[in-house]
Amino acid sequence: MNATNGKHVAIVGATGAVGQEMLDCLEARHFPIRELTLLASARSAGREIPFRGKSIKVKELTHESFEGVEIALFSAGGDLSLEYAGSAAAAGAVVIDNSSAFRMDDQVPLVVPEVNPEAIANRPKGIIANPNCTTIISLMALYPLHKLYGLESIIASSYQAVSGSGAQGIIELDEQIKVLGAGGVVTDDMKNVYPHQIASNVIPHVDAFTENGYTKEELKMLNESRKILNLPDLKVTCTCVRVPVHRSHSVSITAKFTHPVDVADARAAFANCPGIAAKDNPDEQLYPVPLDTTQKDDCLVGRIRKDMVFKNALALWVVGDQVRKGAALNAVQIAELIE
Amino acid sequence: MNATNGKHVAIVGATGAVGQEMLDCLEARHFPIRELTLLASARSAGREIPFRGKSIKVKELTHESFEGVEIALFSAGGDLSLEYAGSAAAAGAVVIDNSSAFRMDDQVPLVVPEVNPEAIANRPKGIIANPNCTTIISLMALYPLHKLYGLESIIASSYQAVSGSGAQGIIELDEQIKVLGAGGVVTDDMKNVYPHQIASNVIPHVDAFTENGYTKEELKMLNESRKILNLPDLKVTCTCVRVPVHRSHSVSITAKFTHPVDVADARAAFANCPGIAAKDNPDEQLYPVPLDTTQKDDCLVGRIRKDMVFKNALALWVVGDQVRKGAALNAVQIAELIE
Repeated sequence: MNATNGKHVAIVGATGAVGQEMLDCLEARHFPIRELTLLASARSAGREIPFRGKSIKVKELTHESFEGVEIALFSAGGDLSLEYAGSAAAAGAVVIDNSSAFRMDDQVPLVVPEVNPEAIANRPKGIIANPNCTTIISLMALYPLHKLYGLESIIASSYQAVSGSGAQGIIELDEQIKVLGAGGVVTDDMKNVYPHQIASNVIPHVDAFTENGYTKEELKMLNESRKILNLPDLKVTCTCVRVPVHRSHSVSITAKFTHPVDVADARAAFANCPGIAAKDNPDEQLYPVPLDTTQKDDCLVGRIRKDMVFKNALALWVVGDQVRKGAALNAVQIAELIE
Repeated sequence: MNATNGKHVAIVGATGAVGQEMLDCLEARHFPIRELTLLASARSAGREIPFRGKSIKVKELTHESFEGVEIALFSAGGDLSLEYAGSAAAAGAVVIDNSSAFRMDDQVPLVVPEVNPEAIANRPKGIIANPNCTTIISLMALYPLHKLYGLESIIASSYQAVSGSGAQGIIELDEQIKVLGAGGVVTDDMKNVYPHQIASNVIPHVDAFTENGYTKEELKMLNESRKILNLPDLKVTCTCVRVPVHRSHSVSITAKFTHPVDVADARAAFANCPGIAAKDNPDEQLYPVPLDTTQKDDCLVGRIRKDMVFKNALALWVVGDQVRKGAALNAVQIAELIE
């Protein structure tokens, strides 16, 4: 930190999995910081967290926490965002909120910096929303293709890591793997985050069910993709599935376009593309897997081929680190856009 | 076994994962057996395998193994099926082959007993093929809906258990889980069946890649579904993915039909349906997971809802035990159809 240059940044939820990753991203990207305020619940207040060789004490989040703060990164759940984002904005901070609380608010831009950076300019509430992780990772692959061919619809099935449930999800998978690895069985008391055993299982249920049979997570892919891409008529069917993977999400996608597609051109669209690269050569059995992107900034796309049901459509497979590009990194990239 | 009643049955590949499950199915279903011949490679010959309270010695597979055999269940890989099925058929046995060797042969019926039992009648080569596991499980869910609405296309993403790679796949996952559970890392010498770590990972690569970028496994869903359903114009896009689950496959499907669909009617179609049941109530958070069907005969379908991209389409999720309904049980059910 430098007493004269850089910004006063606050992190709300500094002790959580995404909060910790935000600190890593700020440090790795040499984000200019004059002062850093770490905020969390009373329970976590007082903890010391290392940053750039110093130790910073976590303070309790209150409505008075934001005096002088210029950028407030929120990652403490929707309820706390709804309660405290207004106070942060009123104090003059630009709020970058990782929860779903404000994403569909017309007065709050929803931003993937590689896709719609211009949207940050219009933020009447002083709040910018960070999109859903599966949506970010999917759009990283779809946006370069949308520019080429014009996106019309998405049919997606996800393979979502337990990191999407925060640190507790990772702990639950680890505990179950430990038990299975020792030859034991997973008992009900080991199922707290997920309603079913997650080790050696997959669960087609992420977030709450809604009236039409889709989960909220699945509808985020629809609603958030429409808003980010500014495509109000985009059609999306999504099935979100939790898998026993630690950190990276994968998504299997059929994307239909308005214009004819070409596999080689589509692959080439990812050359020199910021934040995503193609790993896609069936002849050499090259394709991305979640472990390839774990703790990496960039998403990877592969398995690009002509869809066999639709005309003008591609099937593809995209993976990305849910904690990083799916959450913390995207938020820090938004912060970098703020003047 | 009864000296006068029942059939002389042979199992080729009796010591493999599917061979063992075939024995379990024959026993559990009280299949009428007069004599049982267990065949395997020279390496496994001599092993004693329990069946109905007796112990049966495994014999080495030769072209002379099939004298007097009436039903020969093959599950020893496509190469051995190609080499020995003809000898078994020439000796008068009906061959039920679990490999992909004969599935697309016009003179070999490809049968899911709940879907096209009548196809077994026309078997000029004396061979009946058992379909691909993912295809069987998918069609168990799609056939009742096809009867209602007329199937037109399938877009599917699979979540395939390691049992699909045989006993070695299960051993590889177990070893990796053991290492991760003990806090270690998976090293290259632990990757023999799969080209990547499978624990805490998913791999969008099942069977070999073909020229159009699809894997053979993915094209099986297309070609075998067309043949079983007798729908030569059926369109199928499939992405097959290996997941760190032991035995049950899951498939996320968007199915488009020629007629308008209704979710409640679709759900009701599975009432009293042989071999499959609906577990599908979003209000009570009921849906199937792979552990629900592990070592069970019946498949389960859930997450039935209107697809949001296509007209006349449903999204759904089906799970089934790959070793049982996806392989051994289906083969034994075919055997039960033979007079």
